[in-house]
Amino acid sequence: MQLGVIGLGRMGQIVVERALAAGHDIVAFDLDPEAVATAADAGAEPADSISDLTDRLDTDKRIWLMVPAGEPVDATLDELDPHLDETDIVVDGGNSYFEDSVRRADACPAAYLDCGTSGGPAGAELGFSLMIGGPTWAYDELEPVFDAVATGPDGHGRMGPAGSGHYVKMIHNGVEYALMQAYGEGFELLHEGRYDLDLESVASVWNNGAVIRSWLLELCEEAFREEGTDLGTVADRIEGGSTGTWTVQEALEQEVPLPLIYTALSERFGSRADDGRFSRRLANRLRYGFGRHEVPRRD
Amino acid sequence: MQLGVIGLGRMGQIVVERALAAGHDIVAFDLDPEAVATAADAGAEPADSISDLTDRLDTDKRIWLMVPAGEPVDATLDELDPHLDETDIVVDGGNSYFEDSVRRADACPAAYLDCGTSGGPAGAELGFSLMIGGPTWAYDELEPVFDAVATGPDGHGRMGPAGSGHYVKMIHNGVEYALMQAYGEGFELLHEGRYDLDLESVASVWNNGAVIRSWLLELCEEAFREEGTDLGTVADRIEGGSTGTWTVQEALEQEVPLPLIYTALSERFGSRADDGRFSRRLANRLRYGFGRHEVPRRD
Amino acid sequence: MQLGVIGLGRMGQIVVERALAAGHDIVAFDLDPEAVATAADAGAEPADSISDLTDRLDTDKRIWLMVPAGEPVDATLDELDPHLDETDIVVDGGNSYFEDSVRRADACPAAYLDCGTSGGPAGAELGFSLMIGGPTWAYDELEPVFDAVATGPDGHGRMGPAGSGHYVKMIHNGVEYALMQAYGEGFELLHEGRYDLDLESVASVWNNGAVIRSWLLELCEEAFREEGTDLGTVADRIEGGSTGTWTVQEALEQEVPLPLIYTALSERFGSRADDGRFSRRLANRLRYGFGRHEVPRRD
Amino acid sequence: MQLGVIGLGRMGQIVVERALAAGHDIVAFDLDPEAVATAADAGAEPADSISDLTDRLDTDKRIWLMVPAGEPVDATLDELDPHLDETDIVVDGGNSYFEDSVRRADACPAAYLDCGTSGGPAGAELGFSLMIGGPTWAYDELEPVFDAVATGPDGHGRMGPAGSGHYVKMIHNGVEYALMQAYGEGFELLHEGRYDLDLESVASVWNNGAVIRSWLLELCEEAFREEGTDLGTVADRIEGGSTGTWTVQEALEQEVPLPLIYTALSERFGSRADDGRFSRRLANRLRYGFGRHEVPRRD
Repeated sequence: MQLGVIGLGRMGQIVVERALAAGHDIVAFDLDPEAVATAADAGAEPADSISDLTDRLDTDKRIWLMVPAGEPVDATLDELDPHLDETDIVVDGGNSYFEDSVRRADACPAAYLDCGTSGGPAGAELGFSLMIGGPTWAYDELEPVFDAVATGPDGHGRMGPAGSGHYVKMIHNGVEYALMQAYGEGFELLHEGRYDLDLESVASVWNNGAVIRSWLLELCEEAFREEGTDLGTVADRIEGGSTGTWTVQEALEQEVPLPLIYTALSERFGSRADDGRFSRRLANRLRYGFGRHEVPRRD
Repeated sequence: MQLGVIGLGRMGQIVVERALAAGHDIVAFDLDPEAVATAADAGAEPADSISDLTDRLDTDKRIWLMVPAGEPVDATLDELDPHLDETDIVVDGGNSYFEDSVRRADACPAAYLDCGTSGGPAGAELGFSLMIGGPTWAYDELEPVFDAVATGPDGHGRMGPAGSGHYVKMIHNGVEYALMQAYGEGFELLHEGRYDLDLESVASVWNNGAVIRSWLLELCEEAFREEGTDLGTVADRIEGGSTGTWTVQEALEQEVPLPLIYTALSERFGSRADDGRFSRRLANRLRYGFGRHEVPRRD
Repeated sequence: MQLGVIGLGRMGQIVVERALAAGHDIVAFDLDPEAVATAADAGAEPADSISDLTDRLDTDKRIWLMVPAGEPVDATLDELDPHLDETDIVVDGGNSYFEDSVRRADACPAAYLDCGTSGGPAGAELGFSLMIGGPTWAYDELEPVFDAVATGPDGHGRMGPAGSGHYVKMIHNGVEYALMQAYGEGFELLHEGRYDLDLESVASVWNNGAVIRSWLLELCEEAFREEGTDLGTVADRIEGGSTGTWTVQEALEQEVPLPLIYTALSERFGSRADDGRFSRRLANRLRYGFGRHEVPRRD
Repeated sequence: MQLGVIGLGRMGQIVVERALAAGHDIVAFDLDPEAVATAADAGAEPADSISDLTDRLDTDKRIWLMVPAGEPVDATLDELDPHLDETDIVVDGGNSYFEDSVRRADACPAAYLDCGTSGGPAGAELGFSLMIGGPTWAYDELEPVFDAVATGPDGHGRMGPAGSGHYVKMIHNGVEYALMQAYGEGFELLHEGRYDLDLESVASVWNNGAVIRSWLLELCEEAFREEGTDLGTVADRIEGGSTGTWTVQEALEQEVPLPLIYTALSERFGSRADDGRFSRRLANRLRYGFGRHEVPRRD
């Protein structure tokens, strides 16, 4: 199958390489000519603009977007718009907000598939997990490509109508925050606790048959192997948080309690309070107020 | 009534002064002679040892301990032991663990009252809230003293048998942690939020008629008045935590969920992680593992 | 001062009565003629429509809205619109969302004050706490009315520009959720714990001098007095949650952690899961999956 | 190698079968003669008492206990005691509390290995993850047996001195609670959310390449496949909690915050409040107190 790929960052290149390896023909474009050159080296047909890319595609165009969420997706769709009709299919494989995907699916002249993509750089070898929303016929049509980009036929699925792919991916990420924090708590207690333990060894034994084994735990094992059992110079300020925030916002609307996911998100916010948490500083002053406990002061 | 007071720190002195003001006779002892002198200046009869204090008391001795929780209470009781019999009454007005109080009540030749004391230095003028456990006759006998030391007759009560006074005080403190954190969260959001607010003014308006008005909120108002709306140089490392820890331990045994009290306690632990929270550091390394997010490093 | 009051529910009637008692002249309107009659009995001048009310007001109209948040506020403002000009002042004393208040302040021909009102029915005697946002001149102009409706001059304050009054009230309510849950946890542990305690007596002793004394704790005392120490037939499904939800949403945008407020809100959501919490049901099935623990079944 | 196995429940039988399959000789005992018969059918040499078992073992006895934690372990060790000397090795493969293991290691005449075992019934085919504490020589000596019972050489490790095996297993279980709750929250939101999703399909796509893939997620997939996407009749009261409780208790002593693990444990406690959560019931009464919100009543 012939597939246009727009957006050739780390993830986009993996899409290109896996599709090529499965025998698909790729036309590739990115704003950065070097990224296009990389894709061309891998065997893709280079395009030097979005209209050049659409010109190079047969009728019944199939186009995969792998551009950053937000503005870039809208800008790309605006440019694609005049070249698309209802026989075409556009896949947004990025980390878009599901309500944006619903809106874009409504506005796009082509069939629109929102595709949550999980697996990170490791997906280059293993393939990704693809959570896809949108029209069934478009999903069916693109199955050969999904088979190639995903871990195989089991690595992708049509979740439901427009937006559902990114919806499921959003919640996947919320769960991911909580899983990381859960392992983090366990290893923090092991690290601070009463035995002098080799955490790489703990993670390794757990990864071989324990109930809590997982890919994230394999990454913990790798972390301790590469950074040392005390995590060396890794700092504790955590960036990011948008998909977790979306997950909690959706849960507030649905009135579903997410105490673990919320707390994990909250840890990120707290880690970024450079001047100290205001709530804790107030607590210290109150402890003086009612108990004359000494107020700790900044230098 | 004649009352021996052992332990003349800030809280002990308040007991002495309030009892004297109500017309009781006080015999006072502390390991620190200066503290004894202060009490004597206030009108107490000074004692230079525990046995001197017991000698100075009439039969049917009534003795109030206001010494630090733990070892000092046991040491004091050991020394008192030979001088006591079943007609005597000992009150432990400190912050003892309730199971210690049950044990001490069993072992003490005198009637033993465990007395949780709340109100802090402000109690000097207002009187304390006294939560008392132990034999009814002993509680009744000491009511005139409790009336004086507490805010009045409504400021003290017999909660139940031995240990119940310190049990209720322990849980009081657990609630206190959560209340402080609750106000702290509100003021943190007001401080970080989208309006430039004068937090003293907010606290003041709330203290005049709002649902959340309280003594702790009055202390917040005082904090902002004295430290400024940004709390000036107050630092964010929170010490302490023993009564909160006891509360959570008891709730684990009783299988009662205390998510707010636990989280408030947990904030204290987290505030003391000088090298950065291990769980957050691991999360950063995992984010690199699955997403190649840059790992923040310590200097 | 002459004041129009629109919305004569429980809270509106209190505004009318307190303003009348302070010597102000009230013109009162409500969609329900009986509510108007009640206000008239109290001494207000009745109006039979919004335009009738505005006709009865002098130039430089001062109008207090006490209608339910949302649609009713917009509907009332639409009807008022043609009768207002820049010399007039409208106060929204209801529980509006602060962003709605910003929008309404922009659109309203009159000066617009958003006024968060706290204190509930008890405010009838004590007066309310009023958190007010909007133009300083309008706030100053209405001070005599605020003095009357609030607990007095200290019971109201101008927080800042448009929206800030309802913003501060929103966060007040978030804190309120957490305070209720904090006391709830303490009393739950006292109730389930190892002593047989009279919770009214505990609350009473705490309210007399303890650090955690507050108006909410007085309401706890009242609850145990009126319902019994086991709360009798009071059920555990908690309705409501909109202001708490707004507070958490705002904190997500500001990236401020609110673990206690979130958890308290979350308890409400959880209390309404009539078919059992899905997350718990899944946990049970997983416990079977890895440990062959028996799966509990519904009848 | 010759190995005595005491305790032939589900887990003990797996130990017997895996060791036999690897060519080891097994002498098996259980209080239940049927369990002994089952082991004998599998190829083990049956013993009819503990002393019979020790008689049947060569000098340098190696004995694996797979009996319930607590009393039964102590009872078994008491009975074994006269038959053991310092050349013997006892393994406790059960879910014992680590401080009990430290105590038993001190008291036992033989070398004592505490062995946390994870993997559940699935371990029959895959082998277990074994976290082992105790003397290095004893661990080394038993490696062939551990290779057989575990998933292989990587599936077991010596964590450190006495108690460390059960310590690591305790924390493993704490993490397990939080992971289950994290997945549960995600699936609850998917279930209650705005798309009509097939949760088995979601879990399946996630298990093929997504960041959050894990064995527990495979069990989720199985759960939805076998119970249906709404989990059918599975109820929401969760039993158990002892290892989670131990984990939180240890974290309190170490002053390490475990908000997710605590909350997951707390969900279990909350799920067992048959008469409704007292804290929520109090909140309802307070909402009446300050806002005259109707008090929901039990039938």
